Amino acid sequence: MYRSNEQFYNRIFTSAEKEIFYNVLFSRRDVRKRFANRNIDDKTIYNILKAAHHAPSVGFSQPWNFILIKDNETRQRVKDSFLKERLKSVDLLNGDKERKEKYHNLKLEGIMESDLNICVTYDHKRFGPFVIGRMTVEEAGVYSVCCAIQNLWLAARVENIGVGWVSILNNLDLVNILNLPVDIKPVAYLCLGYVDEFSEAPDLEKEKWLKRTSLKDIVFFEKWEDKNNHNWNGFRKLDE
Amino acid sequence: MYRSNEQFYNRIFTSAEKEIFYNVLFSRRDVRKRFANRNIDDKTIYNILKAAHHAPSVGFSQPWNFILIKDNETRQRVKDSFLKERLKSVDLLNGDKERKEKYHNLKLEGIMESDLNICVTYDHKRFGPFVIGRMTVEEAGVYSVCCAIQNLWLAARVENIGVGWVSILNNLDLVNILNLPVDIKPVAYLCLGYVDEFSEAPDLEKEKWLKRTSLKDIVFFEKWEDKNNHNWNGFRKLDE
Repeated sequence: MYRSNEQFYNRIFTSAEKEIFYNVLFSRRDVRKRFANRNIDDKTIYNILKAAHHAPSVGFSQPWNFILIKDNETRQRVKDSFLKERLKSVDLLNGDKERKEKYHNLKLEGIMESDLNICVTYDHKRFGPFVIGRMTVEEAGVYSVCCAIQNLWLAARVENIGVGWVSILNNLDLVNILNLPVDIKPVAYLCLGYVDEFSEAPDLEKEKWLKRTSLKDIVFFEKWEDKNNHNWNGFRKLDE
Repeated sequence: MYRSNEQFYNRIFTSAEKEIFYNVLFSRRDVRKRFANRNIDDKTIYNILKAAHHAPSVGFSQPWNFILIKDNETRQRVKDSFLKERLKSVDLLNGDKERKEKYHNLKLEGIMESDLNICVTYDHKRFGPFVIGRMTVEEAGVYSVCCAIQNLWLAARVENIGVGWVSILNNLDLVNILNLPVDIKPVAYLCLGYVDEFSEAPDLEKEKWLKRTSLKDIVFFEKWEDKNNHNWNGFRKLDE
């Protein structure tokens, strides 16, 4: 795999290798249904967690923990929290019959059907109180945990495992169900399982809930909302 | 590249392809120095931003913007903010002479030396107020932006571009310098440039500021702090 005199950390990737990487990235999906009836073996779980653990973190604080959950009783309690919170969300759509019905038909979690649940948490005290880069922007600690979650998600994809992030949950319920100490913040509740097929597009795009925005609508040059800077003409042409 | 009947979104990756992916992931670094004197061409910038834009987002809200910055005057103002905030951080270490000296010698940003700066922001109003999955956990919007940043970071690595996240900055300064509206939150300020070499380990690990923790210290089974659950013996053996 390596060219001469090349270490893994110093590799220069070929066009073909870049394509493989982008294939992983663009085919990652938020998966909530059609999990295959196969277990994820321990080595694969280990690989995915190692990928998460090698995310960047502010001041190298590595402020994350991963709770691996297979127990059905625990999952059922998490599912109950989801069902309760979902009802509250549905009520917010009372004035919009069409979206309310659409929302009702969406499959938004795979807590019981997936092989493995993972709760990812943030520990503000880890290696603190002085953490380089976190003294001015305190949220940078939580941001690091999110980078780890994205690493986990992509690693799962390359292993043909679908991941769904369930955010329709009450964090206080999670604290109780998983015995989290007061200073530990739950950041994500993930459901993982093999899938036989990854969807061509995100579910919410396919269901016409929302469209993917165009890159040219969200990229600015030099200052907020500047889309016409002449120094960026080359880039602007690509994005038309 | 594709096996028969296979679409990009449905690829099953071979062992060799997995290795390439993990090589990208494990060789990504937070880069603050030794940027090469080469420009990033527009197509490569476009690729990296597209990777970011294909991150997961809560309720498919895609709540991010990217401000591309090359202007030196703008950069200098950002650098001034860094210098000011760094001095404040140094003062916090007044009781710890050794760490204070070490901190002083660390290179913590490459704002002026890198080819391109990117400010990544969060727009809470995008496709709101009803965003699926954000009604219970409001921070999920910012979490999505962090996932986009990690995608950007990994895509930059596969393109042989180093990225440094500067979090020693005052967000109010960024708001002023980049003309951000009141409802737009700056999440990350990134410095990008080609590098001739990626470091074998994170700078703060090499400088012995902190060690990388072991996976077995941060993974729990079923509940917080449970490390001895017998159902997880197979996993525990891997992690010894």
